[in-house]
Amino acid sequence: MIQIIPVEGMKIIMPGDRLGVEIVNALQAKGIRVADGDVIVVSHIIVAKAEGRIYQLSEITPTPQALELARITNKDPAHIEVILREAKRIVRVRGEVLITETRHGLICANSGVDLSNVGEGMAAALPEDPDASARRIRWEIEEATGAKVAVIICDSHGRPFRRGAVNIAIGCSGIEPIWDRRGEPDLFGRILRSKQICVADELASAAELAMGQAGEGIPAVLIRGYKYKTGEAGASQIIRPKEESLF
Amino acid sequence: MIQIIPVEGMKIIMPGDRLGVEIVNALQAKGIRVADGDVIVVSHIIVAKAEGRIYQLSEITPTPQALELARITNKDPAHIEVILREAKRIVRVRGEVLITETRHGLICANSGVDLSNVGEGMAAALPEDPDASARRIRWEIEEATGAKVAVIICDSHGRPFRRGAVNIAIGCSGIEPIWDRRGEPDLFGRILRSKQICVADELASAAELAMGQAGEGIPAVLIRGYKYKTGEAGASQIIRPKEESLF
Repeated sequence: MIQIIPVEGMKIIMPGDRLGVEIVNALQAKGIRVADGDVIVVSHIIVAKAEGRIYQLSEITPTPQALELARITNKDPAHIEVILREAKRIVRVRGEVLITETRHGLICANSGVDLSNVGEGMAAALPEDPDASARRIRWEIEEATGAKVAVIICDSHGRPFRRGAVNIAIGCSGIEPIWDRRGEPDLFGRILRSKQICVADELASAAELAMGQAGEGIPAVLIRGYKYKTGEAGASQIIRPKEESLF
Repeated sequence: MIQIIPVEGMKIIMPGDRLGVEIVNALQAKGIRVADGDVIVVSHIIVAKAEGRIYQLSEITPTPQALELARITNKDPAHIEVILREAKRIVRVRGEVLITETRHGLICANSGVDLSNVGEGMAAALPEDPDASARRIRWEIEEATGAKVAVIICDSHGRPFRRGAVNIAIGCSGIEPIWDRRGEPDLFGRILRSKQICVADELASAAELAMGQAGEGIPAVLIRGYKYKTGEAGASQIIRPKEESLF
């Protein structure tokens, strides 16, 4: 059995907070001890706060391009300006939706810049290097507990062919994000030829089931009982290079 | 806490088997009683078997188009022929990968036609109407147990921008597949403007974490402790119409 355990009772995160320590403390307050093999999934929004990746929109001067895009998409020009600063390129503008490619190579709405759960007049950008953020949180947890764990940083993204967003892994540490099962036998001994599973994204999606159950108040989740392969590939490995695009 | 419980010890499914009954029996043999609010996630492969959606490849005569595509993709011509019969259109051919749109509107590799876990010389197609299959399995489970449950039928699909496949919901019953959170307040009282979560896909992904832990032998999973909205929209609602395409 796999358990998805919400990390309840975390304080509002401020710049400089050590997230790994905050998560361990919140779990301990509920009598939960982090153990070897646990996976801790952390919402990007508290990583942005801890790392100071928060923009004060009133301090942002939009460029003419941002003003024009704001008019088209019916968004705040300062918000658009932040989205453009975080983008490598604009992929598509349609109605109120602005799809960009972030500097990490993620293709998503609004460069992942979020106005929710940050406070009035502020916007949260994705971590500069989400794999490095995951590594740091993992070290903090391992130092505080002595347990060997994996950490995933998640964000909720839309998909081309499917309605509704799902949580995906934008950063990870301590886990091989893609489980390559090619070469294993199937039920009848036939060798699997093409089975590669993005377990990091599946863990992120599983975590959101618990995150969403209490309004917006659960920014981290502990997943226990899932056996994964350890590794340091990072979630940047999940991003499919344009040359490999199949669709 | 949410629990992901593998349905262990299921027999090899044959045409005509009542999957809901088989799942309840396998759970009971392990001392697990299905309860109100449980979500049962079922792999498409056993649905295909129970519904007789299995092709004997030796009985298939490939068309000239299938022979040509088989040459390009280095696949068995009979397999390609089945893929084409299950497809509404070919989306893309690249190397050994053939992306099609299925008659349900799913855009995926090989029309979802699977050679794994079906037995030598056979191919499994997706259910004709996965939402109807989910409904039938749900009725069987509810009749056998008296509990009100949700059923999701899952398959593992690749994604345009991300490496590795994840499990998604191709059929569902008893659950609203997309949770529309627009209008709810965030942590700071700001109203969420665009938050719609495809919880059916997240539940399918969570289920695969348990399915993959024992070779290929876990074709169903029980998820307990997740509060969902009941509904009869079906997973066909998740498919984004071409007019809505954002990417």
